[in-house]
Amino acid sequence: MRTDDSSQMGGEKETGRLEAFSDAVFAIAITLLVLGIKVPPHMEGVSSWGLLTLLFKQWPSYLAFFLSFISILVIWVKHHNVFTHIKHVDNHFLYLNGLLLLFVTLLPFPTALLAAYIQHEPKVAAVVYSGNYLCIALAFNLLWRYASSDGYRLLGKDMDQGLVVIINRRCNYGLLYTLGSVFFAFVNENLFLAYLLIFLPFNMYPLALWRTNSNSGKNRTHAKPPKSPIA
Amino acid sequence: MRTDDSSQMGGEKETGRLEAFSDAVFAIAITLLVLGIKVPPHMEGVSSWGLLTLLFKQWPSYLAFFLSFISILVIWVKHHNVFTHIKHVDNHFLYLNGLLLLFVTLLPFPTALLAAYIQHEPKVAAVVYSGNYLCIALAFNLLWRYASSDGYRLLGKDMDQGLVVIINRRCNYGLLYTLGSVFFAFVNENLFLAYLLIFLPFNMYPLALWRTNSNSGKNRTHAKPPKSPIA
Amino acid sequence: MRTDDSSQMGGEKETGRLEAFSDAVFAIAITLLVLGIKVPPHMEGVSSWGLLTLLFKQWPSYLAFFLSFISILVIWVKHHNVFTHIKHVDNHFLYLNGLLLLFVTLLPFPTALLAAYIQHEPKVAAVVYSGNYLCIALAFNLLWRYASSDGYRLLGKDMDQGLVVIINRRCNYGLLYTLGSVFFAFVNENLFLAYLLIFLPFNMYPLALWRTNSNSGKNRTHAKPPKSPIA
Amino acid sequence: MRTDDSSQMGGEKETGRLEAFSDAVFAIAITLLVLGIKVPPHMEGVSSWGLLTLLFKQWPSYLAFFLSFISILVIWVKHHNVFTHIKHVDNHFLYLNGLLLLFVTLLPFPTALLAAYIQHEPKVAAVVYSGNYLCIALAFNLLWRYASSDGYRLLGKDMDQGLVVIINRRCNYGLLYTLGSVFFAFVNENLFLAYLLIFLPFNMYPLALWRTNSNSGKNRTHAKPPKSPIA
Repeated sequence: MRTDDSSQMGGEKETGRLEAFSDAVFAIAITLLVLGIKVPPHMEGVSSWGLLTLLFKQWPSYLAFFLSFISILVIWVKHHNVFTHIKHVDNHFLYLNGLLLLFVTLLPFPTALLAAYIQHEPKVAAVVYSGNYLCIALAFNLLWRYASSDGYRLLGKDMDQGLVVIINRRCNYGLLYTLGSVFFAFVNENLFLAYLLIFLPFNMYPLALWRTNSNSGKNRTHAKPPKSPIA
Repeated sequence: MRTDDSSQMGGEKETGRLEAFSDAVFAIAITLLVLGIKVPPHMEGVSSWGLLTLLFKQWPSYLAFFLSFISILVIWVKHHNVFTHIKHVDNHFLYLNGLLLLFVTLLPFPTALLAAYIQHEPKVAAVVYSGNYLCIALAFNLLWRYASSDGYRLLGKDMDQGLVVIINRRCNYGLLYTLGSVFFAFVNENLFLAYLLIFLPFNMYPLALWRTNSNSGKNRTHAKPPKSPIA
Repeated sequence: MRTDDSSQMGGEKETGRLEAFSDAVFAIAITLLVLGIKVPPHMEGVSSWGLLTLLFKQWPSYLAFFLSFISILVIWVKHHNVFTHIKHVDNHFLYLNGLLLLFVTLLPFPTALLAAYIQHEPKVAAVVYSGNYLCIALAFNLLWRYASSDGYRLLGKDMDQGLVVIINRRCNYGLLYTLGSVFFAFVNENLFLAYLLIFLPFNMYPLALWRTNSNSGKNRTHAKPPKSPIA
Repeated sequence: MRTDDSSQMGGEKETGRLEAFSDAVFAIAITLLVLGIKVPPHMEGVSSWGLLTLLFKQWPSYLAFFLSFISILVIWVKHHNVFTHIKHVDNHFLYLNGLLLLFVTLLPFPTALLAAYIQHEPKVAAVVYSGNYLCIALAFNLLWRYASSDGYRLLGKDMDQGLVVIINRRCNYGLLYTLGSVFFAFVNENLFLAYLLIFLPFNMYPLALWRTNSNSGKNRTHAKPPKSPIA
């Protein structure tokens, strides 16, 4: 509905405010996650060991918090990096960004669901959890494709073509990664968690992977930041 | 009380800080909505199918989240667009904006009310929900009328008259739309929901409607953004 | 402890970041207030009238929300106005501002207390509620006195002396007002609420009162905002 | 995992956005603390004295709120001060900062744990609480060591060497302080609380301690802020 709307593009607005608004939403979503970690209800005469046991039993809450925190952080970094190339904004882009934010603000829900059900009914929880990230990856792809298609619609006219290719590739990689997590969510919850944990560093440092292919960025200096290949 | 106060206008303050504060409030309100979606309380030995059923039964929460998320997003866009024309701020304007923010921060409450009662006692919930949006539309109108009346009180002296007419029309349209939703809330909850969903795209792209009338904005370039007709 | 610390002043930091941080805290505190308004727990087969009655019975929540929302808004405006005159910041000032923010972030608690107990055990709730505002007024006074004392310590060297006198007076007025609300909290809860509601407009437009004394600000233009007498 | 990653440094991004995002997270974490203070559940016919007693019985909530509020404020000040020296950012730094924010957003959890269990099973609660601060201090050290090592990696080339030594010392001091709090958490909860309260002012004014050693910063003027020795 949103993406095939073929009305004229709206006037350009500053990307600054949109990015500031998005940053605030990311910051709040990442901070609300902690509300999913509950203090064990107080039991009269609980021992040190008893309380420790109660706290350890909540490991799914800590794991879910950790996974979602890092994930939102990674999405924020990617969002931030892509936005450094966005030179103007139109109404379609704004609502595509809103679609992305919708699924980001939703995250505390599947996070709490995963924490509550990973031990008892993991399949549904894992599928919903990974499905939310799939939606985020899809929205992110739509956002980038819309901005970069049709003659670099919202990018600077001097945008580096090689960079667009790299970002395209990275968007595809993100989509593949989340599709993989949906797949493992259907297969087995332990494989699912292992998959998420193993791929965390690769999500955090995707550029390390691509840097081996392209030797750009070797001769950079501190004084003048060159056109950066990260996105 | 606030609007008919006829005291002298206070000194001018930067619109920047007011807009940043408003943006933060919008961002927090939009992110708090997710707290209305609860994880189904854990039941021992629930099956995959059982959990899925529990999750599907919560559709009013998802629908209410979705409707309120998009609505706040649309209000934020309109707020942001109107503020691009505001050149100075006085104390009346500041409190009119505060009135608007009051009803925006209230939104999580009628949203949760709608989610809880749409299936059981929909009329009251729908009327309160749409009533809150009516209050927002009224506050928005007051804000704009105050800023634009009395010789473009808070707008730039070079403000395009045609643009003011367009924003006026759009404010009237917003008021009519929310009045319509209050009407349907009284009539029938299904018509009410259908009305909200059908009009979502029109709220998101009001400019598409007006663009057919005015052919402005055809010959714009990327380099120099012209005076934008969106508001 | 904080205020009589006589250590050397720390280096100057930008007021911008401090104000942005404070604004974020204000925005979050004002938006969290809505969490104090609960949806009536769903009762099977409740009628429209029954739900309306349940909603009306929650009037203390709405009233407390309204009072605290406007109060935080007014404090934000005052904070913002005072900060327009702050030219540098030191560590003492930073912690005095932190003290102010501490009591601002606390506000959702006495607000919820007032909503829960105004009908049943109003005295304690009203005293705690007004006591919190007294602490805010005290912290605000400390903040301003520290900034303006000792040869306009943190103000610009060209600060208008008459303006300092006006802000001093307004700080005293704020202190008196909150002392009054503590007094009425001890006397009677209805007088207390009446006092708060009657004085709301005066808190919102204090400058209207002072403007009649000083005729400054009459011959201002839109282009160059003069040194503003609001604080 | 994060720190020994030896991939090439990513391109430089503006420190501004990172600091704004961090500030928002600090502001939200500090404001969410109040959600840990609950209104005593309403009891029919409670007397003024009874409600007061209920409120006084919640002193651990108020104490935990106060301790965590001041601690986050102090961490924010330190974070802010260190960032004034950061001239560029790379991906490692970004995730080290994310690690710091992770433990900051976690704080409402150990704060609520401390409030709930300090009277009944204090050891575990105090160890978890102080352990969280230890993690924050460790993350802060990593952040600073990474930025300042390898030829002032992310600092300006003209960074004052003496200043780096002072910040190093202060990072060590912070680590020692949190190690001390973990120690006292194991020993006795009263000593633990006394330790935290006694050291609060030293955490707030560390510079007062160092200023006696170094006489720098004596001959500064208001007009041109010199290179500030606070960090």
